[in-house]
Amino acid sequence: MDALTTIFAHRSIRSFQNKPICQEVLSQLLQAAIRTSTTGNMQVYSIIVSQDEDKKRELHKIHFGQNMILEAPLLLTFNADFHRFNTWCLQRNATPAYDNFLSFFTAAIDALIAAQNVTIAAESLGLGVCYLGTTTYQALKLIDFFKLPSAVVPVTTLVIGYPAENPPLVDRLPAEAVVHFEEYQEFTADKIDQLYAEKEALPSTKELLLINQLENLAHIFTQKRYPKSMNVDFSNLFLEAIRQQGFMNQ
Amino acid sequence: MDALTTIFAHRSIRSFQNKPICQEVLSQLLQAAIRTSTTGNMQVYSIIVSQDEDKKRELHKIHFGQNMILEAPLLLTFNADFHRFNTWCLQRNATPAYDNFLSFFTAAIDALIAAQNVTIAAESLGLGVCYLGTTTYQALKLIDFFKLPSAVVPVTTLVIGYPAENPPLVDRLPAEAVVHFEEYQEFTADKIDQLYAEKEALPSTKELLLINQLENLAHIFTQKRYPKSMNVDFSNLFLEAIRQQGFMNQ
Repeated sequence: MDALTTIFAHRSIRSFQNKPICQEVLSQLLQAAIRTSTTGNMQVYSIIVSQDEDKKRELHKIHFGQNMILEAPLLLTFNADFHRFNTWCLQRNATPAYDNFLSFFTAAIDALIAAQNVTIAAESLGLGVCYLGTTTYQALKLIDFFKLPSAVVPVTTLVIGYPAENPPLVDRLPAEAVVHFEEYQEFTADKIDQLYAEKEALPSTKELLLINQLENLAHIFTQKRYPKSMNVDFSNLFLEAIRQQGFMNQ
Repeated sequence: MDALTTIFAHRSIRSFQNKPICQEVLSQLLQAAIRTSTTGNMQVYSIIVSQDEDKKRELHKIHFGQNMILEAPLLLTFNADFHRFNTWCLQRNATPAYDNFLSFFTAAIDALIAAQNVTIAAESLGLGVCYLGTTTYQALKLIDFFKLPSAVVPVTTLVIGYPAENPPLVDRLPAEAVVHFEEYQEFTADKIDQLYAEKEALPSTKELLLINQLENLAHIFTQKRYPKSMNVDFSNLFLEAIRQQGFMNQ
């Protein structure tokens, strides 16, 4: 399918057919990852392929029991990964100095843009995809589960399969909410009202407010979806994962 | 162009024709960013569009004088951005708690996968693209330059224009270097030799070693391209940018 058509038709898919992904399609997805830009052509990322049913049941628990994980035939976990690169350097009598935060972030960029290439490749082949935000929350548990060595930190996961739903496009804010020309344009109170008017008036928003008995959509985010205690706890755990894997030594 | 064809034909482009990008094409690139998956549909990223010649000359200096910046008609800088979201929350009497590292990283994911969608969209429209790794190195300077408010940190930049070169595909390691099935497979010394054999035997590698008078390719990386002092300095500066923008309060 045409690249722009694929991009403009994107919706996250959270319900999947009981239909496996064949070897050839998996191979194309992985090749799409491998052709992505990578810092200095170091390829400082890795991908864990999860297809085994028992392993997926364990991952389902780690990722807070999201049912789509059991339904989908394939999970791909993307890691910031300097481990192979460091191993190669040491084997060549070179001293790697990639045990710092910049190197972690560089490797995370490699991993994340590869994940988006896989997303586009999958969707162009008729597959559906959903990102799991829980990967960073549960990085320490995933490190144990996948037996990730030092210098490897999971940063995102894609759930992939043939869609069993056909949801509409999700609403987005007007472009001026995210695009700035030449320098950052501060938002006036009127501009904020204007940018959020359509989203706040959606029937789905009104339904959410009724269910949660909250006065507006911002409270849904700050009190229900991403509350302070959760953010603080998972911040500390994710920083601990980065430190434990040796990316905060300098 | 077909999505897979676009993905498999990717090469970074560093030399550009003196040809502007029309408004309609720019608009398609920005829409491609906007349709990308985003955490909780919060859209916690922003994009700075740089087209002004004077501004580009300044950016050329900030990004260490890479000539492609002067040649290309368009630079897009992608930011992890909770600023607009926080402003909206406060205006709705909700208390945002996104001044932590997890929120920074969540916003960085949004920004980075949007950048890759723009890359694919641009390439499918006949444009060439190169990522700038210097964005994280120079985050503090870019914050000043673009007047980025609190909760906004630049994470990557795309240089975009019509290609004036047609380079071959770049070499990649065999897939087993980055793909692991079910759990991480540790690399034996033999495996490392095997994975890097082709890359180490490339004529371009031999030329690099001659020019730099170094014994192997790993030394090129550890001594020339990404040496310790540079990594440590830029790590500290990037962490300072994240802290200064208010993402390390918890």
